Amino acid sequence: MMNEDISWIGLDWGTTQLRCYALNDRGCLIDSVSSKDGINEIKDAKFEETLLAAINPWLILGKVTPILACGMIGSKNGWLETPYQKMPCNPCDYKQFVRITCNDPRMKIYVIPGVANLKQIDLMRGEETQLAGLLSEMDSAIVCLPGTHCKWVQIKDRKIEKFSTFISGELFDLISNKSMIRYSVNKDGWDNNAFTEGVLSGFKTPELLSNSFFKLRADDLMHDIDHALLRSKLSGLIIGIELAGAKDYFKEQNVQLIGEPVLNNLYSIALSLLKVETSAYDASQITLSGLKYGFNSMQKYLGSEQKGNNG
Amino acid sequence: MMNEDISWIGLDWGTTQLRCYALNDRGCLIDSVSSKDGINEIKDAKFEETLLAAINPWLILGKVTPILACGMIGSKNGWLETPYQKMPCNPCDYKQFVRITCNDPRMKIYVIPGVANLKQIDLMRGEETQLAGLLSEMDSAIVCLPGTHCKWVQIKDRKIEKFSTFISGELFDLISNKSMIRYSVNKDGWDNNAFTEGVLSGFKTPELLSNSFFKLRADDLMHDIDHALLRSKLSGLIIGIELAGAKDYFKEQNVQLIGEPVLNNLYSIALSLLKVETSAYDASQITLSGLKYGFNSMQKYLGSEQKGNNG
Repeated sequence: MMNEDISWIGLDWGTTQLRCYALNDRGCLIDSVSSKDGINEIKDAKFEETLLAAINPWLILGKVTPILACGMIGSKNGWLETPYQKMPCNPCDYKQFVRITCNDPRMKIYVIPGVANLKQIDLMRGEETQLAGLLSEMDSAIVCLPGTHCKWVQIKDRKIEKFSTFISGELFDLISNKSMIRYSVNKDGWDNNAFTEGVLSGFKTPELLSNSFFKLRADDLMHDIDHALLRSKLSGLIIGIELAGAKDYFKEQNVQLIGEPVLNNLYSIALSLLKVETSAYDASQITLSGLKYGFNSMQKYLGSEQKGNNG
Repeated sequence: MMNEDISWIGLDWGTTQLRCYALNDRGCLIDSVSSKDGINEIKDAKFEETLLAAINPWLILGKVTPILACGMIGSKNGWLETPYQKMPCNPCDYKQFVRITCNDPRMKIYVIPGVANLKQIDLMRGEETQLAGLLSEMDSAIVCLPGTHCKWVQIKDRKIEKFSTFISGELFDLISNKSMIRYSVNKDGWDNNAFTEGVLSGFKTPELLSNSFFKLRADDLMHDIDHALLRSKLSGLIIGIELAGAKDYFKEQNVQLIGEPVLNNLYSIALSLLKVETSAYDASQITLSGLKYGFNSMQKYLGSEQKGNNG
């Protein structure tokens, strides 16, 4: 690889991770680097220093490399707070990108802003770029993005029409690591039947959520159940309750899953129990696609603007 | 007070607290002492030493004082694991009391066992004594015992017929202190309208639980809402969801609340929104009534047995 080949840089800068992608002028990935320098780790607002430590080898003296960033870097605790786009909107509209001023003359940095759902009171930041990645494959979709804060999104004609966040991943973490029930679910391993049972029970009787959590503990104390089985059931319960809450999204359509492969698989199994078909996309791959989508649309616009200026 | 007046001692020995009551032969409380020596604090199984440190002044050399204990002292991590009574059963059946052997000849200790619901897979330990306290006032009731692990109980003709546990108190603690939402609910104070809104929303759409948690955070970020208001709403949401899950219990009857006064008040407001009437009992007072109920029935039995032996 020659540094001269690097045409632009994409950043996925979240709470716990920084991922950097070097791309050539045809949008091909030619190098990448990632670190644990998520924005939660940055002290004294040393964002530029942190970024340079990661991508300095890609930058050339005398040349300005455009950089497009998404994620929590644009939040209140990030480098520059960028205002949320208001829904309905294209998930990645270059006219909304925000320029960050930096000291190093070799970088010209833009941030993709998050999206606000004023009607249902909800927010996303980072997921909009993943949704933009999906737009290279389809114009309309029901999308589920499993994770700590799982999002359900309705996209119609390349616009986000509606979305809702469920804190299922965080709830699983709290119950399995910090509640009294943790003593009964502290074993890795997987039991598909228990997961299925949990999904169907959570979906059917979401109002019994906090009762069903206690039952896992009681079942263990009464019948000495395998903790890996109870953990699988807990996972199923939490996903099942989420699906009950998100059912308006998927009632008539297939669902596009964007997440880590393990989570995509769990949601795919859970949705199949409700006769819903799914397609799965890897979260980091589709983030890169979204960054490309954003960069290309910005380039086209800048290009046409330049032509306009010349003509 | 003369130590000679002490006829027996009641113990409410839970996970985080030890409460001791000295009673005379007419069941009147003549002294009490409490400490933070809950069973979670006891090292090297020093239960007898801990108890003596609390009640030694009440014991007389050459006299055996009967002691009746309830709570987690009878659990796996307690002094002696006592098997659960199986439901349906009287909440406090002296025939099920378990004797603990101790070294000090001045004490004769009995433990009230917990109750198991084999059908709905549920357990209680400690609450059975509070339910026994209620039996001095009524033979049948729908009872709600708010707390970390809130119990709903159906008592019919002095027997526990059904009960379910909801971990509402623990869920509130996890979400308000350990989740990402904690940043938006970290202020004391109270807003009755927000609590009411939470109760009705949780009751109506329990499936949106983990979405409604996130909305508290989003609402704060979008509209800079008072954190005391959001905390009140969170409390309402969690109680509302519990009420949706417990609605089979209270659909036709008044509810007897047994808990700390502050919690009793919240549940009373929440249930009144659903047109359900409540009466409230203070948890520690009714525990003492339950210990008296248990001790009296044991005394009658031992008395009649003694008579039988004599006759």
